[in-house]
Amino acid sequence: MKFEPPYIAVVFTSTRTLGDEGYGDMSDHMVDLVNQVDGFLGMESVRGADGRGITVGYFRDDEALKTWRENLEHREAMQLGREKWYDEYSLHISRVERSYTWKR
Amino acid sequence: MKFEPPYIAVVFTSTRTLGDEGYGDMSDHMVDLVNQVDGFLGMESVRGADGRGITVGYFRDDEALKTWRENLEHREAMQLGREKWYDEYSLHISRVERSYTWKR
Repeated sequence: MKFEPPYIAVVFTSTRTLGDEGYGDMSDHMVDLVNQVDGFLGMESVRGADGRGITVGYFRDDEALKTWRENLEHREAMQLGREKWYDEYSLHISRVERSYTWKR
Repeated sequence: MKFEPPYIAVVFTSTRTLGDEGYGDMSDHMVDLVNQVDGFLGMESVRGADGRGITVGYFRDDEALKTWRENLEHREAMQLGREKWYDEYSLHISRVERSYTWKR
């Protein structure tokens, strides 16, 4: 994915607990929801067979990210994440200064 | 992974070609090599069954990242990546302003 810097990248790394416990449906719903945020640019998400995952969300500016962080349904999902779905997670909120893409 | 901001996060997303073609060995070697760079803080890497991967490398500052980008063996590996190992990749070079971790 390629956008014009500067923009915000939110790196979310996590380890899932065992079992779905409603995670898949909520995850789909969060993707629908974040796509409605003005200034949301896109996201990329990968999870390995060992339960480790990295999701990167791209936002136009601080205001767009703030809108997403304060979304009530998102806040409920974050709470459920700590209760049920994650063993651990890290969040790195960063400003992208340069970006490149290459394609065969 | 948690470090004290500000630091640099390099988000590398890629799609692998089919077959190993020496990728695994080179990947291991690059991990050894980047760990020798002064100012390299750590990395996280996940690849899904569909060949999509996200690797995030963390560096103390621009100088540490420059040292890694200019490493000759790394440059050769990047060249081989375009010749053999990747169908596409993106690189987002960003400065981390805030970070959080949570653990059960």
